[in-house]
Amino acid sequence: MNNPLEFNPDEWVIDSNDRTALSIRIKERLFYEKSPYQTVEVFETCDRGKMLTIDRMVMCTEADEASYHEMLVHVPMLTNSSIKDVLVIGGGDGGTVRELARHENLKTITMVEIDEVVVRGSKQFLPDIASALDHPKLKLLIEDGIKFVKEAADSSYDLIIIDSSDPVGPSEGLFTKSFYQDVYRCLRPGGLVTVQSESPCFNPKAFVELNHCLCQVFDNDKVHCYLVFIPMYPSGMWSLTYCSKQGLHPLSFKRDRATQFAQKYNLSYYNADVHQSAFALPTYIKNMIAQ
Amino acid sequence: MNNPLEFNPDEWVIDSNDRTALSIRIKERLFYEKSPYQTVEVFETCDRGKMLTIDRMVMCTEADEASYHEMLVHVPMLTNSSIKDVLVIGGGDGGTVRELARHENLKTITMVEIDEVVVRGSKQFLPDIASALDHPKLKLLIEDGIKFVKEAADSSYDLIIIDSSDPVGPSEGLFTKSFYQDVYRCLRPGGLVTVQSESPCFNPKAFVELNHCLCQVFDNDKVHCYLVFIPMYPSGMWSLTYCSKQGLHPLSFKRDRATQFAQKYNLSYYNADVHQSAFALPTYIKNMIAQ
Repeated sequence: MNNPLEFNPDEWVIDSNDRTALSIRIKERLFYEKSPYQTVEVFETCDRGKMLTIDRMVMCTEADEASYHEMLVHVPMLTNSSIKDVLVIGGGDGGTVRELARHENLKTITMVEIDEVVVRGSKQFLPDIASALDHPKLKLLIEDGIKFVKEAADSSYDLIIIDSSDPVGPSEGLFTKSFYQDVYRCLRPGGLVTVQSESPCFNPKAFVELNHCLCQVFDNDKVHCYLVFIPMYPSGMWSLTYCSKQGLHPLSFKRDRATQFAQKYNLSYYNADVHQSAFALPTYIKNMIAQ
Repeated sequence: MNNPLEFNPDEWVIDSNDRTALSIRIKERLFYEKSPYQTVEVFETCDRGKMLTIDRMVMCTEADEASYHEMLVHVPMLTNSSIKDVLVIGGGDGGTVRELARHENLKTITMVEIDEVVVRGSKQFLPDIASALDHPKLKLLIEDGIKFVKEAADSSYDLIIIDSSDPVGPSEGLFTKSFYQDVYRCLRPGGLVTVQSESPCFNPKAFVELNHCLCQVFDNDKVHCYLVFIPMYPSGMWSLTYCSKQGLHPLSFKRDRATQFAQKYNLSYYNADVHQSAFALPTYIKNMIAQ
């Protein structure tokens, strides 16, 4: 594997920050479209199922997308059982909505995705991930999420999920204080937020800055970072962050209910032990975000 | 990053299983030697400190070696506070011995490394990792670990740590039932073992087979797999396995003692919460090793 020619771009997709790189071998490209915002592609990989990339950054693979989507959704949903109205910003592949739709007590899901190409490519080529994008409770808007929350009514959601790509291109504005001030305003009292908050190893600057931004908006003791193993994201160590508007602590969830839910839906990654454990951060990660 | 020529082997070290690959950018190579067993190299990386590779497989980087060594050593040592005599198989870089040496109540450490080149290269170029390789309690033998345990006396160690490289080359025999039968025999009653047990994602076959092998030798309820984030190992998700010979459960450790120890030695990764949480496996990993 020391021959650089083996990394022919027709055979490998490479997600790199110029100091480390994750390369995933592909069989073929199934979808390619340049949208006004970004380049959206779907590949068939050799052993990780189909894979969605945006500007050649891995968004998900069928092999481990459940780890990300289950942890982003079920941690807040199983902490607060009275969540009725949910807003998803981003999430065009549909995995987040698929997991939300398992919660029968939900009333509405509003999803705001800026790029219809992500939705279209996912519906066509990633049907297992996009399976709930026609769900009757879902209102899917192709719009700018930043503008949407700026104009949304105060206290209108119980849960807001920021399921964004990395902070380059159209997602850049999802990593700013003014965006999270709007998110906070749109949340009902007791409401929750979960956020894709980057890799402490691969994107340490974005990870730290976003965490500090969330602490400013929500207060330090209402912001809880947690980690998920996602082997097909560079570094394999990805962070999500749970914030509450004077709401429940993420470890106050009911273990029995979480266990029953995970078994009922045959979840792949999430279980009650993992819910609790994900918040136990290695000391050096705690130190990175300590203030 | 889609130009394959950027992966010039003078600039990148690539650890690959031909379906996924982790590439780490290097500034220069500090050490290169072909031993009778393998090719040992030390590199200066761009942002992960110095890195040891064997046959171009990443053994450790200064940036995250503590995660691996702390979890391999302190989980058993802080579970059983009466461990006196420890055997380390492999571990030529010295990180495992460095962590063991923090435990003042230890009486002896016997380390059996097959390849003196790993020890020499580490002492010269990775002094922060190899810092305890001249420790007065350490007996360092350059020998075949498989032969060593075959000939070792029954019930002679309280803890045996298998700090091996991957199951190709000289480490292959460290992944067999006959080796672990000898390990079991050499353990005192109540003794513990921790093992580098591969990545469930990158080396799923070795991960599953080793786990099943350990369950055969130690019994299912005495074998406990745990996970560590190691971003510079391919997939970032690495497993270690804790086994006991009719000994303590790994979650029976005293939290206060673990917390005090971690603070006293300013550990990077290990803390009491992480000790507990590492054993909470995602459901799909549990299913991989269920029997």
